[in-house]
Amino acid sequence: MAIVGVGHSKFGERRDVNLPELGFEAAKPAFEDANLWPNDIDFLSVGTAGGWYEEVLPAVVVSEYLGLSGKGLVRCEAACASGSAAVATACNMIVSGQSDVAMAIGIEKMTEIDVMTAVELIGRAGYYTWEFHNFGMTFPGYYALYATQHMKKFGTTEQHLAQVAVKNHKYGAMNSDAHLQRAISVDDVLSSRVVAWPLKLYDCCPMSDGAAAVILASEDKAKSLTDSPVWIEGIGISSDTANVSKRPDFVGLRATVAASEKAFKKANVSVDQIDVADVHDCFTIAEILAYEDLGFCKKGEGPRMIEEGQTDIGGKIPINVDGGLIAKGHPIGATGTSMIVGLTRQLRKQGGKSQAPIKNGLALAHNVGGTGHYCYVTILRS
Amino acid sequence: MAIVGVGHSKFGERRDVNLPELGFEAAKPAFEDANLWPNDIDFLSVGTAGGWYEEVLPAVVVSEYLGLSGKGLVRCEAACASGSAAVATACNMIVSGQSDVAMAIGIEKMTEIDVMTAVELIGRAGYYTWEFHNFGMTFPGYYALYATQHMKKFGTTEQHLAQVAVKNHKYGAMNSDAHLQRAISVDDVLSSRVVAWPLKLYDCCPMSDGAAAVILASEDKAKSLTDSPVWIEGIGISSDTANVSKRPDFVGLRATVAASEKAFKKANVSVDQIDVADVHDCFTIAEILAYEDLGFCKKGEGPRMIEEGQTDIGGKIPINVDGGLIAKGHPIGATGTSMIVGLTRQLRKQGGKSQAPIKNGLALAHNVGGTGHYCYVTILRS
Repeated sequence: MAIVGVGHSKFGERRDVNLPELGFEAAKPAFEDANLWPNDIDFLSVGTAGGWYEEVLPAVVVSEYLGLSGKGLVRCEAACASGSAAVATACNMIVSGQSDVAMAIGIEKMTEIDVMTAVELIGRAGYYTWEFHNFGMTFPGYYALYATQHMKKFGTTEQHLAQVAVKNHKYGAMNSDAHLQRAISVDDVLSSRVVAWPLKLYDCCPMSDGAAAVILASEDKAKSLTDSPVWIEGIGISSDTANVSKRPDFVGLRATVAASEKAFKKANVSVDQIDVADVHDCFTIAEILAYEDLGFCKKGEGPRMIEEGQTDIGGKIPINVDGGLIAKGHPIGATGTSMIVGLTRQLRKQGGKSQAPIKNGLALAHNVGGTGHYCYVTILRS
Repeated sequence: MAIVGVGHSKFGERRDVNLPELGFEAAKPAFEDANLWPNDIDFLSVGTAGGWYEEVLPAVVVSEYLGLSGKGLVRCEAACASGSAAVATACNMIVSGQSDVAMAIGIEKMTEIDVMTAVELIGRAGYYTWEFHNFGMTFPGYYALYATQHMKKFGTTEQHLAQVAVKNHKYGAMNSDAHLQRAISVDDVLSSRVVAWPLKLYDCCPMSDGAAAVILASEDKAKSLTDSPVWIEGIGISSDTANVSKRPDFVGLRATVAASEKAFKKANVSVDQIDVADVHDCFTIAEILAYEDLGFCKKGEGPRMIEEGQTDIGGKIPINVDGGLIAKGHPIGATGTSMIVGLTRQLRKQGGKSQAPIKNGLALAHNVGGTGHYCYVTILRS
């Protein structure tokens, strides 16, 4: 099946809109892009983590506001990979013949909860009983474990991490939908306050509100709707232990390795063929792990990738040219859908100032839930 | 695809187990029934509403405890239809060729939250902003609106409602997994305390803890695994407005009508061919609405169906012979999966004392989320 329309809200502190209004801001341009009306859609999947809404049925209020009441509906949750799960679910509804045209929307409102509640809720994204409650782990703390072991084993430095933040903020400054649109320097990162050493403020993505929407259609329908469909070639899904302490090491995410292997196999492509990718940089170290786990380089060579500018436009594989989670923002459920929206635009060569060169017409979205508790990898082709 | 294994936990107040242990209680017999090990499964969908867990990633902790870390994973939420959504998602993973053998588990732990919190959270299952917050609606209150309009328009009486409770408690008393295993009389129902008139205590399902699991396999795989596969012939999914106040009337659920039409069409069967059904009797009135909306009788004739015993074993169409939500219990996310487990056993003629006559080998599960905000209808064939 193919993507026939995409839409994206402004990410950031969006106290000006409520949840369904935020969804509308992403869905309306998607309808316009596909030249379709709500009544042309027969299924909606809503990706949202949503443990903090006043609305306990967030998918239903979003659906009603989009004019989709009466259609097939489900909410998908895969932690920070919920947006990719929504796309996968909509794809499968089409493949199974239950839907001709489906919408997947990723959405999250995070900035209305207070910071301590957020720290607690996000810190529970693991195995609360064993790790949060007993050992007081927070989410940056989990990734700091990965960072310190990677530093010890491969000589990764705070400068390497900072370079990821600098690259992503550079592209965030070119993206009018990004939460943070300001270029920063390595010194800015290194001198920002420590959150969980070695991760400092600019090594962490912000808490954001936002939504992104994708309209998918069956092959026949897609061909009748658009001259520039973007095909979903393969989706790989994996998971890992709830207990981070049960994993063999902290230098990579097994879920990423497994999900990407499945996606490459299904799409029948190799990592070398990918033109442009979005990877899940909730923290700078996570982007370096992703380079390695996805196979863009060997394990331990991630720091050299960023040092040499290989993941910049002009390098071997441009990564997170929309600003990534770090600069574009990370409204949990919206992130995976946002990646797929951005990569669809890249494959259509609508990337503007941050357009990557497209040679093979292949893009990859890598969306992690929790600390590798979930991983969804989606491969797109123009 | 086909069901090759089912398992069911004891429903009730399950303070003796935590969430993953409760899941294990359903998954273990499903593995044994299918004669499979966790490593044979390649995808797990977890249906749970789960707004009240200490664990914010309930699917991940359940997955780890079942030995399924590393497999594909997602959590599905469709309010009280989350269990059916999990089954639909697992089915579609198989149809799309991404999975050969998948498990769907529905699970909920509800009794550990205090009653007032539960009343608030469940009351929000609609459009919180407009209806709960401003008008103080509770969940029984919503269904009481349906009951009173049905009474006014069709002469439905409190006795009719009570007869539904009596029937379902009769069958609950035969089901060793049921939360409430005690036969009651019409007088017991009529003299129980008013919750939201005309709904009294025995017109309402209890708050329960529980889990139910289904193992699904592709056609080829299913034939190699079992001599008695139960096929999923069609799934219909629909939804309705978040605002109950935006609906045209309160004498039926449009989502049920739409979802069942889709399911019948996909399965290519008519309502008359169904041998046995589970319908979503969160309140007694909901079962009467379901008779009509699913087409087991015409609109307004539901009361006569229960009065004449047409939905009892020996009647036209035995309904909720596992005790229904009212007696078996309603652990939100587990309910849809539990229906499918019970109907699989009916089609295999493992129904014991409450075995319905099986003529055409067809069963129907009707699972509503909220007040018809979601509806999933699943048609099974032996």
